[in-house]
This record gives sequence, C-alpha cells and structure tokens, in this order.
Amino acid sequence: MERIFERTMLYDFYGELLTPHQKEVYESAVFEDMSYTEIARDEGVSRQGVFDLVKRCDRILEEYEEKLHLVERFLRTKNKAVEIRRLAGELDISEEDSKVRRIIALAEDIAAEV
Amino acid sequence: MERIFERTMLYDFYGELLTPHQKEVYESAVFEDMSYTEIARDEGVSRQGVFDLVKRCDRILEEYEEKLHLVERFLRTKNKAVEIRRLAGELDISEEDSKVRRIIALAEDIAAEV
Repeated sequence: MERIFERTMLYDFYGELLTPHQKEVYESAVFEDMSYTEIARDEGVSRQGVFDLVKRCDRILEEYEEKLHLVERFLRTKNKAVEIRRLAGELDISEEDSKVRRIIALAEDIAAEV
Repeated sequence: MERIFERTMLYDFYGELLTPHQKEVYESAVFEDMSYTEIARDEGVSRQGVFDLVKRCDRILEEYEEKLHLVERFLRTKNKAVEIRRLAGELDISEEDSKVRRIIALAEDIAAEV
C-alpha cells in the first residue's frame, strides 16, 4: 500500500482510539500537510515533540491493525465489490434492467465504504 | 441484534484487544456455555471474579464499537451483499452465465466475511 493511503485507512478505522490532542496534531501533520515547525508553534510544543507524537500515533494505529486486521478485511471486501461492479457492467443484458442497475449501485456503495 | 449474535460479532472484531486471560474466561463463559462455577474452579478464582470479568469484557468490547462502529459498518456491507446475491439470482439470464455465477460467488464471499 502507498504510505499515505495506508495512513488514511488506518486513521479512518482506528483514529477514534487516539486522544483529542493526538488526533489534532496527527491530522495537521499527516493530512493537512502542515510543517512540524508550524504545528509546534500552534500547539506550544517543540518540533521534536510533534515528530515523536506523529511517530507514536503511526505505531499505535499499526498495532491495532496488527491485532485486528480490519483494514485488510475491508480491502478484501472492497476488491470483491469492484469486481462485481465490473462484471455487472459487462452482462449481456441492458443496464437499463433495474436489477442490474441495483446490483451496480450496491457494489459501488460497498466499494465506497472503504 | 440478538445478544449472543452481538457478543459474537463484537468478540470477532475486537476480541484480540483483550488479554489472553480475559479471552480464555470470556470464551468459556459466553461461547462454550460453561457455568461460572466450573470456570471459577478451572481458573482458581471466585465465581464473582468470573462474573465481574465477563461483565468487564462486555463493556470493553462495547466501548470499542461505540468508538469505531466497525461492526455496524460491516453489517451494512453484508446486507448489501445479501441483496446483490438475491438480485443476481433473479436476473432474467441463466445462472449458467459465468459472470452471473461469479457475481453470486463474490456476493456470498462478502456476506460470509462477517
């Protein structure tokens, strides 16, 4: 997995297990792409403090996935849904058929859950 | 959700976050249907100790779900997969069509993940 995608997935699944402070700093650093210097200034901590917190949060999130494998489980499901969507689109039956349209919509919903 | 189904789902998703001792007692009490008296004897603890541990584990597992909602997310996905499976089975196209068969198999896989 690409690192940013992996971090996004892990945070989406387990981020609520971090403290509000950890979440705030982690989001600024990883998703809003603020510099550690800026975040340190905003949070009134050292640059090293920000660095350590981000590293620690990465580790916490990874440890949850190592134990629970729920991101992995969801990605397997997503891949299957993407394949259903593709196959349904290729059926020798008009996509105007309401059942096929519904199958496609449901498969897209499942894929979008992740 | 039925209580035993709910407990099974919560344990399936978050059980690995319990300690080995908690898991052992919880499994004996909830899934192997052993009496608290039997478990207390096997584990060398009081009957009340078993009772408290089971209650505490239920609470821990529920708290993870309250924060993460991953069981809820998976159940939504499962329901959609069950509907895809039903619709694909009703298509005006032979189930011998390999694409329809594959759609059904994938939908069944997704539903079985939960």
